Amino acid sequence: MTDDIEARIARVAFNDVGLVPAIVQQWDTHEVLMLAWLDAEALRRTLTSGRVTYWSRSRSEYWRKGDTSGHIQQVREARLDCDGDAILLLVEQTGAACHTGTRSCFDTEDLHAVDALAPAETKAGDGA
Amino acid sequence: MTDDIEARIARVAFNDVGLVPAIVQQWDTHEVLMLAWLDAEALRRTLTSGRVTYWSRSRSEYWRKGDTSGHIQQVREARLDCDGDAILLLVEQTGAACHTGTRSCFDTEDLHAVDALAPAETKAGDGA
Repeated sequence: MTDDIEARIARVAFNDVGLVPAIVQQWDTHEVLMLAWLDAEALRRTLTSGRVTYWSRSRSEYWRKGDTSGHIQQVREARLDCDGDAILLLVEQTGAACHTGTRSCFDTEDLHAVDALAPAETKAGDGA
Repeated sequence: MTDDIEARIARVAFNDVGLVPAIVQQWDTHEVLMLAWLDAEALRRTLTSGRVTYWSRSRSEYWRKGDTSGHIQQVREARLDCDGDAILLLVEQTGAACHTGTRSCFDTEDLHAVDALAPAETKAGDGA
């Protein structure tokens, strides 16, 4: 199994500082919870332990999600994208995924894009 | 509206080469389709035009998704994460999101993580 895990990690195209971004999604509701970064060792721990572990770019240390907050992420599935440079982690999230206390890190900040599917009269900006 | 769009773009923490990663999700099924990168101008075009535009790191050019493939992405909503350094785009995806022809870029490559919620006897690796 050791060779096998190394072969799986070798398929990942880490960036020039050795990291890959991971999209974290609640496996059953499909809610996107957060985006965070893994290096090879964090990925090894995540794939083999059942608990998601990141590399914290701000603290320069491994960070097993939930060790201090209790808001753990249990791994269900990990998928690599077509270019090998992004990962999708399907997890069971306990409690809030975001350090601000919201379920998802994307819950609060709306960039107010034009809604291309809204009826023309309700679109922001000029009409159709 | 010009000042407003610039204020929204100014909230984004672009990385040291001026890019931010965007998670792209089908708005109604919540399927994660792809991860791609935007610079400030790509974000401006995405937020104001209703069509998702990326910065192609491999081709060093703007890339309005679907212009050659027909597989356009119509914007419904754009959200910024708690740190300002990742974007979630909710889109209406026409056809395949992936250049390989699959619906999602994450459809084909399984990294075979241990499933932490599986019954112990079916887990990969050692038992509980």
